[in-house]
Amino acid sequence: MTGHARDGPVVVTGGAGAIGSVLSARLVGEGRTVEVLDNLSTGSAEALPAGSARLRLHRCDLASAEIPDAPFRGASEVWHLAANADIRRGTAEPETDLHNGTLATAHVLERARRADVPRLLFSSSSVVYGLANVQPTPEAYGPLLPESLYGAAKLAAEGLVSAYAHSYGMTAYIFRFANVIDGRMNHGILHDLFAKLERDPEELEVLGDGRQAKSYLRTEECVDGMITVARKAAETVNVYNLGAEDRTSVREIAEKVVAAHGGRARIRYTGGERGWVGDIPRHLLSIERVRALGWAPSLSSTGAIDRTIAEMLARRRTPAPRP
Amino acid sequence: MTGHARDGPVVVTGGAGAIGSVLSARLVGEGRTVEVLDNLSTGSAEALPAGSARLRLHRCDLASAEIPDAPFRGASEVWHLAANADIRRGTAEPETDLHNGTLATAHVLERARRADVPRLLFSSSSVVYGLANVQPTPEAYGPLLPESLYGAAKLAAEGLVSAYAHSYGMTAYIFRFANVIDGRMNHGILHDLFAKLERDPEELEVLGDGRQAKSYLRTEECVDGMITVARKAAETVNVYNLGAEDRTSVREIAEKVVAAHGGRARIRYTGGERGWVGDIPRHLLSIERVRALGWAPSLSSTGAIDRTIAEMLARRRTPAPRP
Repeated sequence: MTGHARDGPVVVTGGAGAIGSVLSARLVGEGRTVEVLDNLSTGSAEALPAGSARLRLHRCDLASAEIPDAPFRGASEVWHLAANADIRRGTAEPETDLHNGTLATAHVLERARRADVPRLLFSSSSVVYGLANVQPTPEAYGPLLPESLYGAAKLAAEGLVSAYAHSYGMTAYIFRFANVIDGRMNHGILHDLFAKLERDPEELEVLGDGRQAKSYLRTEECVDGMITVARKAAETVNVYNLGAEDRTSVREIAEKVVAAHGGRARIRYTGGERGWVGDIPRHLLSIERVRALGWAPSLSSTGAIDRTIAEMLARRRTPAPRP
Repeated sequence: MTGHARDGPVVVTGGAGAIGSVLSARLVGEGRTVEVLDNLSTGSAEALPAGSARLRLHRCDLASAEIPDAPFRGASEVWHLAANADIRRGTAEPETDLHNGTLATAHVLERARRADVPRLLFSSSSVVYGLANVQPTPEAYGPLLPESLYGAAKLAAEGLVSAYAHSYGMTAYIFRFANVIDGRMNHGILHDLFAKLERDPEELEVLGDGRQAKSYLRTEECVDGMITVARKAAETVNVYNLGAEDRTSVREIAEKVVAAHGGRARIRYTGGERGWVGDIPRHLLSIERVRALGWAPSLSSTGAIDRTIAEMLARRRTPAPRP
């Protein structure tokens, strides 16, 4: 662990993605040098801060084990955010999360170990809890019985991160996210509902009975929470939930989207308790642990939804220029 | 899930191993047809009941994904027991447990899914708890922070088993074992200590300070516990600890081994709280949950140690014939 300055380069996998790009920009803004590893499958180079000499993008496939060594050399920390973002795809194609989640994580951790990187930071998810019978769900909840292969890969990655930290003298941070949203995302419920209204402005199909209720957190707040924990927590392995303290129902979200779209569409629910196989229809994270470090999100879950809808409307009015 | 009789063939991976061979013999004894999948790396064909037409051994490497389909066809359950049994090797060679634990599990589950096998039974371990700050540790303990890559692979496999059960309509059983022992095993503390005394009858080196204290369970009791749970528990995913209700210290075990070996050797402790990196120096499982199903081991942990030492002495006096 010697020879690694606390302010050495930072590796961010998935650093061109929805959360990773915001984290990368934040780290560059704090004066860090950032090495982004991304396969650009859902992320995009345009999401990254342009023209910074302190940010390098390495396009590579983490699942292939052919990850460049260079970005890890002398790095002081690895933020491993890369993952398949589509839970339903993981159920239809069972190798997706095994490769892009579990194996990719093993490869990244092995690179970090060989380069003697002292700190690991990993973006896990509330899905590791499965359908928890304690809500708000604390970090100490168990047993962890994920319902999707996406969740299984997040749990597998948590175990790897913990074992690498303990076995090889690293410090690790595991962040279990609520649903993280912003207006730029190309996936998630708001993106899906707006895309459906584009195709059919008269009727909005909503998966499930609308009573699913989840907790939403803005990307910039999520990044802020992670950075706070990474500064303040000092166990060998630090597990922290990051989320809002309220839930927003799918019905509420659908009605807000329809209103934002002009209020014309009729909402049609497909029915059933879950939106899809592997969906966790209700979740709420306890954030007492991160509150004890002096951090909490400034927006409620419903506030995060409202801000994101407003952002999406603004982006629709002024579409980003295409290169 | 149709067309699978509850009494169809049973697939047992690792079925030639220390626990798998006892399970396979028990299932054959109950009239089941057993398809054993084993790479014979630590297991051996001689461990299996000889001359039974209702037991077939398929030698294959579960990590390679080239697993035969035939044993899974029409099977009513898959007992997945195959694993690397050497925790220290997993730390020295980080790909060991990833391949033989996590990937092997993913491959076995995928075969089971494609063949529509309705029931999965998986041998996990107390190591998923890491060094638990609640002992006796209940199944609901969290967060699960394994300290070895072996433990990480067990946790990854638990997540996969849970996700497969929920995503594809299977029923799953996850058994978290204490240290499972018997006199035939070719690994574990008793095997190691006896082997050391064979090499040097004057001095017995013991890893750690001797104060490590763990709970031991006999193989036949472990198998009995699993079969009881598999008959009685009926959730989608059923997680059960299997262990004794007391701990035996490494010092006690070393002194018993020396006494059994003639009482001559001096014991030398290497020192330190842990025997090796990734070792969990103290564990005790709560077995309240399995007790509620009407099962508990008949032997204490120390009773299991005593019986196993007696077995090992008897085997030393009458060595098994070599083919």
